Amino acid sequence: MRTIVFKGRLVIIGCGSIGQGILPLILRHIEIKPAQITIITACERGRGVAAEYGIEFINKPLTKDDFRDRLTPMLRKGDFLLNLSVDVSSTALVELCRDLGVLYQDTCIEPWAGGYTDSSLSPSLRTNYALREEMLRLRVDGPAPTALTTHGANPGLVSHFVKQALLNIAADTGLGSEIPKDRRGWGELASRLGVKVIHVAERDTQQGSTPKGPDEFVNTWSIDGFVGEGCQPAELGWGTHEKEMPADGRRHEFGGDAAIYLMKPGASQKVRTWTPVEGAFHGYLITHNESISIADYFTVKEEGRVAYRPTVHYAYHPCDAAVLSLHELAGKNWVMPSKQRLMVKELVSGIDELGVLIAGHAKGAYWYGSQLSIAEARELAPHNSATSLQVTATVLAGMIWALENPMMGVVEPDEIDFRRILEIARPYLGPVVGVYTDWTPLDGRGTLFAEDLDTSDPWQFKNVRVI
Amino acid sequence: MRTIVFKGRLVIIGCGSIGQGILPLILRHIEIKPAQITIITACERGRGVAAEYGIEFINKPLTKDDFRDRLTPMLRKGDFLLNLSVDVSSTALVELCRDLGVLYQDTCIEPWAGGYTDSSLSPSLRTNYALREEMLRLRVDGPAPTALTTHGANPGLVSHFVKQALLNIAADTGLGSEIPKDRRGWGELASRLGVKVIHVAERDTQQGSTPKGPDEFVNTWSIDGFVGEGCQPAELGWGTHEKEMPADGRRHEFGGDAAIYLMKPGASQKVRTWTPVEGAFHGYLITHNESISIADYFTVKEEGRVAYRPTVHYAYHPCDAAVLSLHELAGKNWVMPSKQRLMVKELVSGIDELGVLIAGHAKGAYWYGSQLSIAEARELAPHNSATSLQVTATVLAGMIWALENPMMGVVEPDEIDFRRILEIARPYLGPVVGVYTDWTPLDGRGTLFAEDLDTSDPWQFKNVRVI
Ligand SMILES: NC(=O)c1ccc[n+]([C@@H]2O[C@H](COP(=O)([O-])OP(=O)(O)OC[C@H]3O[C@@H](n4cnc5c(N)ncnc54)[C@H](O)[C@@H]3O)[C@@H](O)[C@H]2O)c1
Ligand SMILES: NC(=O)c1ccc[n+]([C@@H]2O[C@H](COP(=O)([O-])OP(=O)(O)OC[C@H]3O[C@@H](n4cnc5c(N)ncnc54)[C@H](O)[C@@H]3O)[C@@H](O)[C@H]2O)c1
Repeated sequence: MRTIVFKGRLVIIGCGSIGQGILPLILRHIEIKPAQITIITACERGRGVAAEYGIEFINKPLTKDDFRDRLTPMLRKGDFLLNLSVDVSSTALVELCRDLGVLYQDTCIEPWAGGYTDSSLSPSLRTNYALREEMLRLRVDGPAPTALTTHGANPGLVSHFVKQALLNIAADTGLGSEIPKDRRGWGELASRLGVKVIHVAERDTQQGSTPKGPDEFVNTWSIDGFVGEGCQPAELGWGTHEKEMPADGRRHEFGGDAAIYLMKPGASQKVRTWTPVEGAFHGYLITHNESISIADYFTVKEEGRVAYRPTVHYAYHPCDAAVLSLHELAGKNWVMPSKQRLMVKELVSGIDELGVLIAGHAKGAYWYGSQLSIAEARELAPHNSATSLQVTATVLAGMIWALENPMMGVVEPDEIDFRRILEIARPYLGPVVGVYTDWTPLDGRGTLFAEDLDTSDPWQFKNVRVI
Repeated sequence: MRTIVFKGRLVIIGCGSIGQGILPLILRHIEIKPAQITIITACERGRGVAAEYGIEFINKPLTKDDFRDRLTPMLRKGDFLLNLSVDVSSTALVELCRDLGVLYQDTCIEPWAGGYTDSSLSPSLRTNYALREEMLRLRVDGPAPTALTTHGANPGLVSHFVKQALLNIAADTGLGSEIPKDRRGWGELASRLGVKVIHVAERDTQQGSTPKGPDEFVNTWSIDGFVGEGCQPAELGWGTHEKEMPADGRRHEFGGDAAIYLMKPGASQKVRTWTPVEGAFHGYLITHNESISIADYFTVKEEGRVAYRPTVHYAYHPCDAAVLSLHELAGKNWVMPSKQRLMVKELVSGIDELGVLIAGHAKGAYWYGSQLSIAEARELAPHNSATSLQVTATVLAGMIWALENPMMGVVEPDEIDFRRILEIARPYLGPVVGVYTDWTPLDGRGTLFAEDLDTSDPWQFKNVRVI
């Protein structure tokens, strides 16, 4: 079903796993002609898919120096710039779109190439916290064209899952069924439920037909994107229940202070978490925008002081081939291997179990999310895997929401209508389930070796962190 | 070529990857009839191979209570007990063999079932250090039947590699070509060369035809053996050049004091090392007997004080499927998954690059070892993989050496004739190479994040350890 008519130009930057996967969804759900769309990339990937749909494909990387000159003639007021690239600065594009009156959406706040690992910057300035602050500084007083940032699966969809999950927990614990009306209301609901921790708990079990070879990075989505964020400092929204700052934990000297970072790459730090199919597992504490934006959104202040905030972070178990790739990458001190393989067509089995684990409330912990399989993803849409479809369904929903709400300025997923997004994305997410568990990060601990645990509060980060 | 005639009985305990792989080598190189051999196991694995060679196969586990009664009637003076099992106490068997005048060999000092993870024992008593002290206490004054312990690939072969490597380094750095005559001489050679660190540096790149599935442990050799040792404390021979005891490092309150242990499972601690084909990588600091025996053997004392000792430890990168299995196992707090798959026949590619990295001398670091491929292993002997053949070739060599030297009492690999062992094993090891490298654990460090490094001495354990 077509949900909205769009008469303007749509420029898509990037045609990798997400850029290719979004095309069938856009053409299925938005009233738009292929001739209205232009794709700009920095490589040949996706040319065939673009051609299949009759969409113009320009392989010429945008640079800091030429992006304004090249994009300005392509975009007019009311047009749409969809950024699904790596290595093109999101804030630079948002500024340009604001100047031109163009709608904007991305799935990640990207810096220009090399920004994630620019060792001339302090670790603090290489965080998503810093990138997000830069984005938030672009907010202006008064109406401005909608720029929906970080609206993929995660960041993106998971912010909406959090809200639905909180409502479910409230209902199941007899704390009412009223939907909070504003940010304050949401923070108070989380606080009232006793939520201490929100993990974005993801286990990707997809397998390809060929095992990872030596000197090769294999993943189910952007390898540049994953390695980039994996080399950024580990980051987490830092909750008010936390008693102990990690020895390598640091606060920033600027911005909203909702998050801390650790003095090490996220890809080198594992954390304990849980999903329904996988059970307990170790995920990587990869930095993500949602760790900060969700923690920030649910912060409750009393007289200027932070009275409540949950700890929020990603706990990512990528596909097995990517776990091996990370292991190799760490062994080579984070130097990208010479070969990269993004698996889409070659995937033969597995699911992407992606959701939020919300813990500390009366019923222990609750996981709410999507358990989309590669087989179902392929039935639902061409050119997608389970991983990409969770992203592209949310990108589609974000585009429709932005077209329906064109003058909202810079907005994050947490700030937009979660019900509308879930309504549009839901048919593409496979089984969406909510499961309670009495699992905690203290389960099975300290049996062979004494461990420094806080047994009085299972949900202290110190218990979650793998040493 | 048959090298020795054996007229007695050979009882083999265990018929897993090593027990099966040793059979063709024994029958090829020792003048013995299948009817002289009996196999005792606790499972059906290997029954077909035993039948192929016409060897008796008894599937009935030995226990603490029945092993004496069952084995005594099977063994007479001059017979041979080859222990290739898990879960049967090596020291119990050595005592029995001493009482009966029977030769003995194993590839690992095993405790009775559950000993590695018996949480009623202190971590110190769950170490290989403790198991080795127990074995060494069985030494008696005067002649006793030879009991060659821990003589597989590692522990085992690598002790002989160390000696050959030290001679090569001495020759290449102009420090002479004389072969030390005794233990003291070997220690002094290592000390004179400036050797600080000896890694048993292994990278197994063998791949099977099927990827690891969920709730499954996959490896190229004993899964029980690997999980058992992986759950023991990390252990390392502790060198005299080390400046800083790790915060979680502990000395034992008994025994020779050549090694320390860390208060965590070895399978949870990675270390930096290097092999020629793989280059730099992260291996697991799995405890092994050789870490202690080599450190002990090369210790030089002056007036009762330890004047020199190298740091010695394992740095093991098992096959990729086993890396994933360890990751899963850690995520489930070291509870064995319900499925286990030991790959031998299904292996399709890869090598087992197993050797010693000797570092701190005038030429930096030197790796010496075997780079046997699965294809070559299959050409050399049936029922073997690259991993098992490195073990079984050394077991064969140890048997022949023991038969040639039947009254040596309890001996470790370091104490026996390395040239004789290498002579026998060599044809089964594929390419055996020695390669110098200027790699150190400081390479590529501290670029993205400041790290607590000792830049004045690359070979401090603190630099090697992955945090
Ligand atoms: N929020 C989420 O859930 C989520 C999930 C997956 C990916 N992402 C993000 O989406 C983006 C794309 O992911 P992907 O998996 O499709 O990545 P990909 O690596 O498969 O593709 C990246 C694309 O960017 C293009 N590109 C690179 N440099 C460019 C430049 N200078 N100018 C124009 N194009 C350029 C490449 O040519 C390629 O088409 C990344 O930022 C990634 O982090 C977000
Ligand atoms: N030093 C080395 O290089 C090296 C290398 C590989 C294996 N090993 C050691 O060799 C041994 C065997 O390794 P594997 O890979 O063949 O192991 P495996 O797991 O494949 O086989 C173990 C065998 O032991 C038998 N067993 C178990 N309990 C028993 C009992 N109570 N009584 C009799 N038999 C019993 C099993 O039935 C099986 O036949 C292990 O101790 C392992 O640590 C040493």
